[in-house]
Parts: sequence; structure tokens; C-alpha cells
Amino acid sequence: MNIGALHSILLVLSTVHAFQYNQLAQYIDEHQEDYVEALRDWVAVESDSSNVLRRSELHRMMEMVAQKLQQMGGSVESVDIGEQELPDKQRLALPKVVTAQFGTDPTKHTLCVYGHVDVQPAKLEDGWATDPFNLTEINGNLYGRGASDNKAPVLAWMHAVEAYQKLSLELPVNVKFVIEGMEETGSNGLEAMILAQKDSFFSDVDYIVVSDCGWLSRRPAITYGTRGNCYFLAEVRGPKQDLHSGVYGGTVIEPMIDLIGILDTLISPSGKILVPGIREAVAPLSDDEWRMYQDIEFDVDDYKNKIGVSKLMYNNKVDLLAHKWRYPTVSIHGIEGAFSDPGTKTVIPSKVCAKFSIRQVPNMDPAVVEKKVSEHLHSVFAKRHSPNTLTVSMVIGAKPWLADIQHPLYEAGKAAVKRVFSVDPDLIREGGTIPISRTFQDVTGKSIIMMPIGGFDDGLHSQNEKISRFDLSDFCFLSVVLFLQMLTQQLKKNTRGRSALDYFSESY
Amino acid sequence: MNIGALHSILLVLSTVHAFQYNQLAQYIDEHQEDYVEALRDWVAVESDSSNVLRRSELHRMMEMVAQKLQQMGGSVESVDIGEQELPDKQRLALPKVVTAQFGTDPTKHTLCVYGHVDVQPAKLEDGWATDPFNLTEINGNLYGRGASDNKAPVLAWMHAVEAYQKLSLELPVNVKFVIEGMEETGSNGLEAMILAQKDSFFSDVDYIVVSDCGWLSRRPAITYGTRGNCYFLAEVRGPKQDLHSGVYGGTVIEPMIDLIGILDTLISPSGKILVPGIREAVAPLSDDEWRMYQDIEFDVDDYKNKIGVSKLMYNNKVDLLAHKWRYPTVSIHGIEGAFSDPGTKTVIPSKVCAKFSIRQVPNMDPAVVEKKVSEHLHSVFAKRHSPNTLTVSMVIGAKPWLADIQHPLYEAGKAAVKRVFSVDPDLIREGGTIPISRTFQDVTGKSIIMMPIGGFDDGLHSQNEKISRFDLSDFCFLSVVLFLQMLTQQLKKNTRGRSALDYFSESY
Repeated sequence: MNIGALHSILLVLSTVHAFQYNQLAQYIDEHQEDYVEALRDWVAVESDSSNVLRRSELHRMMEMVAQKLQQMGGSVESVDIGEQELPDKQRLALPKVVTAQFGTDPTKHTLCVYGHVDVQPAKLEDGWATDPFNLTEINGNLYGRGASDNKAPVLAWMHAVEAYQKLSLELPVNVKFVIEGMEETGSNGLEAMILAQKDSFFSDVDYIVVSDCGWLSRRPAITYGTRGNCYFLAEVRGPKQDLHSGVYGGTVIEPMIDLIGILDTLISPSGKILVPGIREAVAPLSDDEWRMYQDIEFDVDDYKNKIGVSKLMYNNKVDLLAHKWRYPTVSIHGIEGAFSDPGTKTVIPSKVCAKFSIRQVPNMDPAVVEKKVSEHLHSVFAKRHSPNTLTVSMVIGAKPWLADIQHPLYEAGKAAVKRVFSVDPDLIREGGTIPISRTFQDVTGKSIIMMPIGGFDDGLHSQNEKISRFDLSDFCFLSVVLFLQMLTQQLKKNTRGRSALDYFSESY
Repeated sequence: MNIGALHSILLVLSTVHAFQYNQLAQYIDEHQEDYVEALRDWVAVESDSSNVLRRSELHRMMEMVAQKLQQMGGSVESVDIGEQELPDKQRLALPKVVTAQFGTDPTKHTLCVYGHVDVQPAKLEDGWATDPFNLTEINGNLYGRGASDNKAPVLAWMHAVEAYQKLSLELPVNVKFVIEGMEETGSNGLEAMILAQKDSFFSDVDYIVVSDCGWLSRRPAITYGTRGNCYFLAEVRGPKQDLHSGVYGGTVIEPMIDLIGILDTLISPSGKILVPGIREAVAPLSDDEWRMYQDIEFDVDDYKNKIGVSKLMYNNKVDLLAHKWRYPTVSIHGIEGAFSDPGTKTVIPSKVCAKFSIRQVPNMDPAVVEKKVSEHLHSVFAKRHSPNTLTVSMVIGAKPWLADIQHPLYEAGKAAVKRVFSVDPDLIREGGTIPISRTFQDVTGKSIIMMPIGGFDDGLHSQNEKISRFDLSDFCFLSVVLFLQMLTQQLKKNTRGRSALDYFSESY
């Protein structure tokens, strides 16, 4: 084929593309209300994976996912991934993982969409302005727990496939789904499932896309790395039961005071991790990284104002982004077993369990972190000569993930973003943890791209989580376009011996 | 009157006493089931004064108290004591204080019974074996929040009056009741009410009895002192709202880490209060006290085993009792606003409020303690250079109380205990706080006695609070007998110009 012929083909392709784009964009716009209603149904389910009392809701959520995919005509499976062991040794069924497949054309690339439909805890009294499980629209924003993390993005990918179907357009790629219900607590059981299906469900997957993240600013972004997370429980047990602080105070060594004493040795006021052997493992910041960070659209003052604090841990962009993305940190989330309600209870809690986590970055190893933290806490606890007992356990140990941004998948992603938003995306990392990115990479050896679906101010994990009504459409459209862009990449790479022209001449 | 005549009178008196004792004891025994049912009705009301969401239950509880006293024919008043200001500046009506009077004979002594019917918080999931608001009998023990603290004791005094009434026996003393509903949170509003009624309701009160305490061992006890309590809130506020610890961790100075840092400066692992200026105010232990403590029935090993710890803060009886009763201590009760549920939420709480208290003993002054604690915490917080804001407030500032154990009131109390339990009581102090004892003493200048009603293992303020079914009767009988003993004291003192013989010759 000479250059002139190739040029003509690309021109045809471009015209066909443009036609498809318009059809799909119009369809998506017209169905925005349906997308809001679908999200409302999903948000209404309190699929909090961290609360065992909500497990039946989580099972129901997974069934709703399977039903939706079945209604779309997918080949759907609900995969039993076994049980989890609770701290009290009870065993509890994990929510099934739902897999689905649309299209089995061996000549097409296969894109696997990963998402999760479990959510963080939420209670009205935590400071939500609206019922967190009743999707509520205020000024174009749709408020509800899980709206942005991760129910709307999961729906966006499904609605993208549906748009092709309803318009009777052939999907440019085979699309697979892997939807889980334990992401917020460390994707318990999913890694084993991926390993088990490595040579079956995942054998023909070429690329994996994850939309469990957000933009950094008003500029669209593509994410190429995430931090991992080691989540710890440090429990101090003392008296048989809670005691009256008047009656017993002064005679017993209080577990709460022991616990506060050891928690105070984790991190300094200036953010330095004090656990020996943690900081030493961190990969140094390279000059390339430094330069890249300099160019990213990020306004330190905006960030500060958005959070509502007068001072951040670092006051320049590069340090701040580096500590958000590629350095570890300690967060202390809370204490279970102590008095946490309003009021003035005069209790000596008998058993208190602190929850804290250390974010993981290359080249940290969760197994080493677990050992170092446990050794450190037991060492400082021993110095207190307390009769109470300390138990340290790491209940989540998720590794960080980092992708090769030179991979053609990222070219497709960048082009898709540019097509939809008319601007080049920032290449960013994510401070949060999507454990499965790293697992996919390790187990399947395939490339993963993270396409953020959700605004930079969506309030993931906090009160008043929301997604914009308009994001629902934009991101559905982004999903649609990525399918097409992958076709273009396929044409360029021609890895399967079939050109995009063949595809278009058959289809249209 | 010659010696022989006096002897005859006392003999008659003693015979009449014995007859009354038997009648009253039999009546009380026969009505045990009624007493259990009355307690059941009261325990069913979640009259938690520390939880503003339960305020309507508390109002209902006070109405039930007033009704009970009215049904007994008392002259009852529900005294409006105004409102309380909540931390958010909202105002909330305080539960009314119920006063009642039985008998107005100016020739008799007047005993005022103080009690409270509000309770500590309780939730099944805190580790209760039974519903805390459904009185449940297991092996003769009646489990329920408030069963021992302080609903059954309040009922015991009422049932004592009722026993006299039902048997048509004249009450040996005038009896007044002051029942409040804010004791567990510092008796808000009661002091002002006592001051206001100093020259009316309280003008003819000779003695005050409080039964809001427990025995120290299986040996009966009378209590002559209580610790006070300064209850503090230390709130650290940072970001506008809770943040995702993955997304923001490492860039913000976390309020929870600041709070833990300052809490860790309150008390050493060995129980030494580290706030400057607190320990200096404490009255030194006298030799007399040391000797008295030596003789008190108290088994350190039993105490240790009951609590379920391998080591206490002190390993000898005198040190332990002294630190239970007459030295201050710091207890850290919990943190509001942090993650306290089961599960693994990855949150950076934006606003966290620690609750801790410092028990007060002679000669500490809550106003000074407030100043010292606030100065200390602000000082250590300032050294952290945090952009977050710290607010320290003392929400309870209750003084300690100490009685003169040489007073005839204590002779009457000791004799009553000996009559009912056939053993001399230990004279003990109480580590907990009954703020009103001190207030009564300061405002009315009258003598106060604390007659513990409730076993030493009743679990006040903790899970599975209970009272023994048999205590209900024994303590009702103790109340009855104290009335009679006060008559004997009256005879000895003859302070009102009328002998007990007059009384008995009129009555029988």
C-alpha cells in the first residue's frame, strides 16, 4: 500500500469516525436522565464493604450489577471468591465478583474494564447535607455515597457499550468487565480470582482500564501510578470490661493512654515518619519527575483553599505533588472501642483499637512495612511496662502501581481525552490506592491505563461526595471514544493482522 | 426522770422498734416482685443525660418520678431549672428537678434524700450481653443501664416511705426528696436550684442522704468523701471536611495526629500527671488516713482479678486506695469525630474532639485546674506549629466532697447498717463524683451521709450494669431502718425538745 492509499484510508476512517462520534454523542446526551436514574438506584444500596453488618446490601449490589450486564446481553458470570476471616475468627462470605464479556471477535483487541461498587461508610450525622444513600441533585451536582467513587464511572463504561448497542454500531473492541465489591477494604479475594482466571477470562485481554480516580484540576488527566496502602489495627486490651473512670481511675493502667502513647511515635508534627526502616526504601525523586511535576496544572493556593487550611505540609508545587503521589505518609483514622459519641461519658474503655495506614510507594514492600511497624510499636509499648496487651495486625497490604507512559495505550488515552475535552491531559499519579492496578500488572503482564472519571472536587471518602450531572455524559462519551481510539491504535500497530479499514468496510 | 424510768423507756422503745422492724422487714420481703417491676419500668427509659438526642426520654423519666411520688401522696413539685447551652450555642431545656415532701411535723427531724434518674450511655454493641434498656434477670441479678446507678437506690428510698404508709406506721422523720436528671453530666442547673431554695425547701432539712455509690467489698460501707471531676473537651479543627487519606495524605497536617500528640503529654505511663501545677495542690496523706486505710477490708488481688488485669498501677492496699479516693488522675475517654466504627475507613477526620477528665481531690480547685490544663495543652500545641486550631473547654467542673465522720449522722448510719447486715460498716471514700454532696454541704451547711445502695460489682458506667434482686429488698430495709435510727439519734440528742418516748406513746 502506497502513501497515497494510506492517506485515503485514514481520511475515510476519519469521516466514519466523525459520523460515529456525532451519533454516539447525541445518543448519550439524550439519555442523561436515564444515567442519573441508574446511578440513583445504585447509590440507594448501602454497599459499605468495611461494615460486616451491611454485607447483605453488598451482595444485593453485586446482583444488581450482574442483572444490568445480563440485560445488556453480556455473557455474565458471578464468581464466588470465598470468605473472609473477621478479627473474631468468624467467617463471612465475600461479595461475588461479576465478570462479563461483550464481543468475542478474535481479530479485535479486548479491553477489560475494572470497577468497584462497594463504598466507604457514610452517615448523615457525619456532616452530610443530604441522606448519603438518596442521590440528591443540587445545582447540577448529584450527591450520594459512591456517586463518584466508583458507581457512576462503572455505569459510564456500561452505558458506553449500551450506546453502541442501541445505535446498532459494532463495538470497535471486545469489552470485558470485572466488577468487584471489596475495593474499599483492599480487594479481598480479587487477586486470587485474577490468578485463577489468568489463563481463561484474562487470557485474551489486551488492555485494562480503570476509572477509579479523579482529575487533579479542571484540566483532564490520565493517571499512570497509584500509591499502595498498608492499613493497620493496633489494639490494646486491658480490663475485662469498660470501667467507671471515677471508681477505677488512678488504679488501673488505661489501654487508651497506652494506645495514645504508641500512636504518638508514628509521625512527627512536620510529617516525618518515625518508624525505623520505612523512609529508607523510597525511590528517590528523579530529575525527570521533578521537571514533569513542574509542568502539571496545579495551583497550591487553590488546593489549600479547597481543603480550607491556612498552611499545608509543603508550600511549593513539586514537594506537595511528590508527597501526594510518590512519598509515603501516616494517617491515623480513628479509634474503635473508645467513647466516640456526643456527650461526656466517664468511662475507661477496656479495649481500644487504633486504625492507621501508611501509603506505599515504589520501592516499598508491604511485607517489610508490616514487620517494621509491628516491631516498632511493640518496642515502644514494651518501654511502657504496661500489663495491657498490644496486638498489631496489617489488614490491608496493597502495593503501589506505576505504568509505562510510553505505551501506545497511553497514546490512545491521550487522544481520547483530547477528542472529548479539546485539551491534552495532564499525566498524573494518584495518592490513593487502587490495589488491583498493581495486581493486574503483576498477574496478567498487561498494560493498565487509569482514565479518571469524576471531578477533582468530588469529595471521595468524605462527606457530601458528589458527581456532576454533566460528568455522567462526558465520561460516558469518553469511554465510547476510547473504544474508537483503541481501534486507531490497532490500525497503527496492526497487531492482529487486520486493519481498521477492513473493520469499517465490513461494518458500514 | 430518774435513771430507772429512762431505762424502762428505752426498753419499751427497743421493743416497739423490734416490732416495727419485723413488720417492715416482712412487708418489704413480700413486695420484692413489685420492686423489680418498678425498676423494670424505669430502666426501660433511655434517660441518657449526655446525649441531647435522648432529651425527651429524660423529660419523660422525670415525669415518671413525679407521678410515683404523687401517687404516694407526697407534696410534689417539678422545678424548672432552665436551659443548657450546647457547644454549638443551641439551647436545650434541662430536665426538671422533682422535689417532694412526706410529713411536715416541726418536732421531727427532716431527712432529705437525693438521687438521680439519668444514666450513662449504653448500647448493645458496646458489649452488653442483654438489651441495656430491658431489665433482664440472670441468676438473681437484674441487668440494665441505671439499675444500680441510680434508679434502684432512688426507688429503695421511695419504697421505704411507702412501706411505712402501707403499714399505717408513722414516719419517724419527715422525708424530702430531691431527684434530678443531669447527674451523669455534672448536675447542670441543680446548684442554682439549691441556692434558690436554700431558705424555702431546704430551710428545715437537717440531714441529707445520698445513695449514689457502692460498697468497696462484701462488707457494707458508708461513704464520707467523693472525688470531684473536671471533664475536658480538646478539639482540633483542620480541613473544612473529612478527606480521603490516599488523595490528601502527606499534604495536610492531620488534626488527629495533632490531637494525639497533645493528649500524650497529659499523663506518664506510670500514672504521673504531667500537666504543671496539678499535683502540687493535693492535700498530703495524713498518718491517720494511712492507718484507717490499713484497716479497711479490701483485697488487692480480688480487685485485680475482678478488673481482669495482671498488674495494677500500685500493688499495695494503701497506695491503691489512696489513688482510688484521694489523689487526682487523668482518664482519656475517647475521641469524637474520628472513625470509630468497625471496618477500615481511609479517612483524614477534619475535626476531632478528645474527651478526658481529671478527678479532683482536696485541695484542688477546678477553676485552677481548668486554667492549668488549657495553658498546658495550648503550649504543647503551639510547639507543633500546626495550622489547625485547638479549642480546650472544661464542660464539667465538680468539686470533691469530704464529710466529718464524727457527726452523729454517721453514728445513725453505722447503727442502721449494723442492724440490717449485723456487721460494722467500713468508712470509705468514693473515687467517683457526686457533685451534689459538695454543693449541699457548701450551700445548706447541713451534714451529708452517703449510704451505698448497690453491690461492689454492679458495673456502674460499664457494660452489663446490674443490681442484685436481693439488694432491692435489703437496701429498702436499710432505708427504713435509717429512719428509725435517726429517731434514736434524735432521742439521744433531744434537739427538738421532744423525746422518742413521746413519739412512741402517741403513735402506739
